Amino acid sequence: MGREEALEAEVLRKIKPKPEEYVKVRNVYEKIRELLEVALEREGIVAEIELEGSVAKDTWISDDVDLDVFVLYPKDLGREWLKTHGFRIILEATKNLPQTIAYAEHPYVKVTVDNIEVDVVPAFKLKDPLEAETVVDRTPFHTKYVISKLNEKLKDNVRLLKKFMKTIGVYGAEIRTSGFSGYLVELLIIYYGSFRKVLEASSETWKPGIVIDIEKYFRKKDLPKIAEKFQNQPLIVIDPVDYRRNVAAAVSPKSMATFIAASKTYLRSPSESFFFKVEVKPTLAEVVKLISSKPYDYVFVLFPIPKKSPDILWGFLRKSVKGVKSLLEKFGFNVLDYDVWCDERKYGVFVFELESERISDFVKSEGPLVFSEPNSSRFLSKYVGSELTIAGPWIEDFKWVVIRKRKFSRASDLLKERLLEHGVSHVLQEHLRKTWFKVLLKEDLKYIVEMVGYDFLSFLRNFAEKKPEWLRI
Amino acid sequence: MGREEALEAEVLRKIKPKPEEYVKVRNVYEKIRELLEVALEREGIVAEIELEGSVAKDTWISDDVDLDVFVLYPKDLGREWLKTHGFRIILEATKNLPQTIAYAEHPYVKVTVDNIEVDVVPAFKLKDPLEAETVVDRTPFHTKYVISKLNEKLKDNVRLLKKFMKTIGVYGAEIRTSGFSGYLVELLIIYYGSFRKVLEASSETWKPGIVIDIEKYFRKKDLPKIAEKFQNQPLIVIDPVDYRRNVAAAVSPKSMATFIAASKTYLRSPSESFFFKVEVKPTLAEVVKLISSKPYDYVFVLFPIPKKSPDILWGFLRKSVKGVKSLLEKFGFNVLDYDVWCDERKYGVFVFELESERISDFVKSEGPLVFSEPNSSRFLSKYVGSELTIAGPWIEDFKWVVIRKRKFSRASDLLKERLLEHGVSHVLQEHLRKTWFKVLLKEDLKYIVEMVGYDFLSFLRNFAEKKPEWLRI
Repeated sequence: MGREEALEAEVLRKIKPKPEEYVKVRNVYEKIRELLEVALEREGIVAEIELEGSVAKDTWISDDVDLDVFVLYPKDLGREWLKTHGFRIILEATKNLPQTIAYAEHPYVKVTVDNIEVDVVPAFKLKDPLEAETVVDRTPFHTKYVISKLNEKLKDNVRLLKKFMKTIGVYGAEIRTSGFSGYLVELLIIYYGSFRKVLEASSETWKPGIVIDIEKYFRKKDLPKIAEKFQNQPLIVIDPVDYRRNVAAAVSPKSMATFIAASKTYLRSPSESFFFKVEVKPTLAEVVKLISSKPYDYVFVLFPIPKKSPDILWGFLRKSVKGVKSLLEKFGFNVLDYDVWCDERKYGVFVFELESERISDFVKSEGPLVFSEPNSSRFLSKYVGSELTIAGPWIEDFKWVVIRKRKFSRASDLLKERLLEHGVSHVLQEHLRKTWFKVLLKEDLKYIVEMVGYDFLSFLRNFAEKKPEWLRI
Repeated sequence: MGREEALEAEVLRKIKPKPEEYVKVRNVYEKIRELLEVALEREGIVAEIELEGSVAKDTWISDDVDLDVFVLYPKDLGREWLKTHGFRIILEATKNLPQTIAYAEHPYVKVTVDNIEVDVVPAFKLKDPLEAETVVDRTPFHTKYVISKLNEKLKDNVRLLKKFMKTIGVYGAEIRTSGFSGYLVELLIIYYGSFRKVLEASSETWKPGIVIDIEKYFRKKDLPKIAEKFQNQPLIVIDPVDYRRNVAAAVSPKSMATFIAASKTYLRSPSESFFFKVEVKPTLAEVVKLISSKPYDYVFVLFPIPKKSPDILWGFLRKSVKGVKSLLEKFGFNVLDYDVWCDERKYGVFVFELESERISDFVKSEGPLVFSEPNSSRFLSKYVGSELTIAGPWIEDFKWVVIRKRKFSRASDLLKERLLEHGVSHVLQEHLRKTWFKVLLKEDLKYIVEMVGYDFLSFLRNFAEKKPEWLRI
């Protein structure tokens, strides 16, 4: 047995669920199932109760389980009925358990039993997956497909790949991660045959626009056309139960690239660090020291977040932080890196690394072409002999140029004054107008941590260090 | 009479040659003519002696005259003969006058008589301008064409336009100026009909790619094709004596744009300052004060120049200063403006205005696509855990990026070390390897002026002030 085999066997030993875990999960499922059966009978509704997800497919990982229980109603009850009555039956059935209501395309119920989270989801029972109008209607077909293809060995390989992806930060199709879903991981194992072969394929053959068509719906020569249809989605995996869909639609360029790079590194020098993160929580003093050691500057924007579901929240937070980055660049600040943190409950923080938070007081600025009117005259009346002008205007090629005073030579001033007007998305703009936001610097880190809690420190440490933990040469 | 008419009449009064100037010029011409006739007779060569240029066309300006005397040899003597014997006859004929040898496409002789400079040029006597192989062979046809088209009024308008262009710095087809030749000015007056109309046309209708076809060689619908043929030449004026040539080939975008902008300004608010520059020579203290008042930095490169004719010299000096500018930009310095000064005898100086001569010690640098090999592995082995690395590498979209130390954080260090390798043109490179160059800063200005002389100060004052003197709103 080679070094990798030994390593992977050892990892599996740790992550494969134990018999007692199987018993516990089974008991939770039976409990929910009973509650639902009673409720359905009381309402006189005939529906099937089905276990979906990684537990149904036996691809789950020890210590990391949640249950997906689907209630499959007859389709002739109609979508409106499903979203109201179909949902209400589930809500009623589980009313004595700790509940929350969640939303995907429809509302569903989250309950907790024995410390295990259970999503109880209303959906339609369909004959053909092509009839499905929502992701949840399609889920039972995914479950059946995967079960029909996986043997014990393949299941273990799914577990390894999931854990690998989790550790390098690309597991999860939600917007926050924009990575690989569990179903996608299963399909990759089915297609390539093993954990190692997926890594080899991604190292050697994956490029943006690659199409993986397991059930061979398309002829090879048509694949470029398919890639074009899914443009802006760098990885395309045709859903075996619905040829019209890309299972990997959520995978961002960064997630795909991170997986490729990590695969290469693992194959060159495999180690446990690709499966188990040793997350030592940093202290405030450590993070202060880390960011003080950098020769560039940090700017933070701290704000309360509106109550929204995580996907919607992360959607506009990412859009907003990108918008604010563009605002900074437009005004001449060199943004080295940026990101957004959020606890999904109370606060969000935009973080920007700037070459310098303070830049020169002046900027060379391009005006209109000399022969273009009225732009040319307007430019000259604005700048000739003006207090704004430091030198010029003069002509370069066919254009007027001028060296003028900057409006903002400090990034913090710019953000204080313009963040709301330009930059953040509409939802966040509305919210921040009604609440508040603070623009803060390196030296305000203690204040931020006291406000938002210590979780932010781990995020900031990773952001400042940048280099992925698994990256070695 | 309007304000402009009065102004222009007054300008004309000052710039039109006086009767005694005509007499003096005529005497100089007769003297040269006699010397040439004697020499030709001695050699037994039959050739015509012809006055060309602004004196022949009577479009010259008081106090600013030089003579162009052409010796037109029979074509059957051949080009080789012309360049050797044809030239030698002229050299011999004028040997008792202060002489220098100059080069255009052929060698010719410059002599000075009575403080008037005379170019004595050997050329062929042709029947048809389309036979001409050089500019000088074509010149007699230009002279005849212009004489046939200009009346007294038009000649005065030529004088006004020449003086206007001279004052705003766009008169002269030599590389140093890259502006409008005398012949081009005459053609513009012939085409548009007056000084004012040329200004109006340039303000209202000139754009890069405009074609002026006085003799209507081409159909209107073919003009875009013509513009394409002369691409990179923003102004195209078809030579009335040779439809294949653009008389305005030397006009740079900057000269054309400057003329357009100055025309607009003059038409809005005409003034004497467009015809007479009040050049007060600045003192060292004044220029030191001026450049010290700027919030940005200056870097100078001082060097001895090789002995070359002005057009060749200015050609590679401009190419070199542009190359050095690119070198600075490639290493992260923001060049606000740059230029080259040269006395055409001993020294040259490159001048750069930089946002800052000292920039950050680090730079964010883009690496290869993660899936591209061996580039990706090479990049990682260079930067992972290296002393060069300040943060990263990490992945953005599909690319590796890193924040690394800069090689040069001072422009003067970069130039001291890399100027010769990259940047300057081959000729200058060879010369500077054998001689020397110095990279100097603001505080070295006194040293530079002591070395190269006070003329440099006027240049630097204008460069630093940038705004053309005629520019008002």
